[in-house]
Amino acid sequence: MRSDYHDRLDALTTGLADMCGLAATAIERATDGLLHADLSIAERVISDHDDLVERKAALEEAAFILLALQAPVAGELRAIVSTLRNVSDAERMGGLALHVAKIARLRHPSQVLADDVSAVIAEMGTVAVDLAHAARDVVLSADPERAARLRHDDDAMNDLHRHLFTLLMDRQWPHGVAAAVDVTLLGRFYERFADHAVEIGRRVVFQATGETPDSAD
Amino acid sequence: MRSDYHDRLDALTTGLADMCGLAATAIERATDGLLHADLSIAERVISDHDDLVERKAALEEAAFILLALQAPVAGELRAIVSTLRNVSDAERMGGLALHVAKIARLRHPSQVLADDVSAVIAEMGTVAVDLAHAARDVVLSADPERAARLRHDDDAMNDLHRHLFTLLMDRQWPHGVAAAVDVTLLGRFYERFADHAVEIGRRVVFQATGETPDSAD
Repeated sequence: MRSDYHDRLDALTTGLADMCGLAATAIERATDGLLHADLSIAERVISDHDDLVERKAALEEAAFILLALQAPVAGELRAIVSTLRNVSDAERMGGLALHVAKIARLRHPSQVLADDVSAVIAEMGTVAVDLAHAARDVVLSADPERAARLRHDDDAMNDLHRHLFTLLMDRQWPHGVAAAVDVTLLGRFYERFADHAVEIGRRVVFQATGETPDSAD
Repeated sequence: MRSDYHDRLDALTTGLADMCGLAATAIERATDGLLHADLSIAERVISDHDDLVERKAALEEAAFILLALQAPVAGELRAIVSTLRNVSDAERMGGLALHVAKIARLRHPSQVLADDVSAVIAEMGTVAVDLAHAARDVVLSADPERAARLRHDDDAMNDLHRHLFTLLMDRQWPHGVAAAVDVTLLGRFYERFADHAVEIGRRVVFQATGETPDSAD
């Protein structure tokens, strides 16, 4: 028979998985808002972020209560502390999606990005959504193979980020300095989004198997 | 009489304070390396960062052991979990100093920054060092007034960051796109460094007094 305690542990896990899912939605919408200069979708990402912040606070409190009332043994203790940290990463992913949405809003109604840059950012957006979904799946399954996929996606993100820099550093960059500043920040936001997703996967797998993939940094 | 348990709690606190001090040194040297195109000091920041990463891991492990063996009561439990998170912020501060040092190394032997930008970055560096020292002091003292100073310094950092953007967005920006990309990233690194210092102070004060200053984000 399942105990209330184990139900609460499971609720922490599903709560974290839900946060990863919401971060996926946020970065998907933020990317859409950016690529199509769609103010309403950008504003939706911005207003939805509060929900993620509240979920983070609620899960942190739930984790504290478990730690305080149950004095869990070593394995479960590590799992709870690991979840505490993962909810921070998931919230940061949402925060980075928020930053992308704010750039879209700031530049509205202009198209933020030229076509060549747009294509790269669109791919970064797709990879970011994949990463957040993979992090959610790893949280639920603790599957090391799914976590390996996270590393693979992160490599793809790093390649895209490097490609973006190649475009920026081209002496013929035709879009001006203001656009270069936006693109530099956007590249950083997507790259950090990926880092946090990888970090969640790394912690979950370490927690489940005792084996650590390489650090996300 | 002090117990071994309380000695270990104190060791966590001083370990975290030391990390803040090391982050202060790292950002001070990274800024020096950047402003004076000094490769050796930039490389020192890069190689020293491993120490901070190791200290983080050691403190995390020490915190886990305290949680596992002592099953601390609510107040001390929160203090330990709060320290666990603060060591992550302190390590990130070092990581951001590392990023600054890497830009200095990448551009060496060129001077990365034009004079007008240099002056702003120099100030950002000074404020960052102050913030890391203030975070260290707050960790040791839990003094809310010292924490208020953190907020004040963070406001100064945000003003400097805005000023940097004004320079970048000037249609007459004369330093080219590559320099704009560097300056954009540098601005972001110093600003994030400040956010992490403020977050440490916020957590310590909340932990000590139950009152939360506004969130750092």
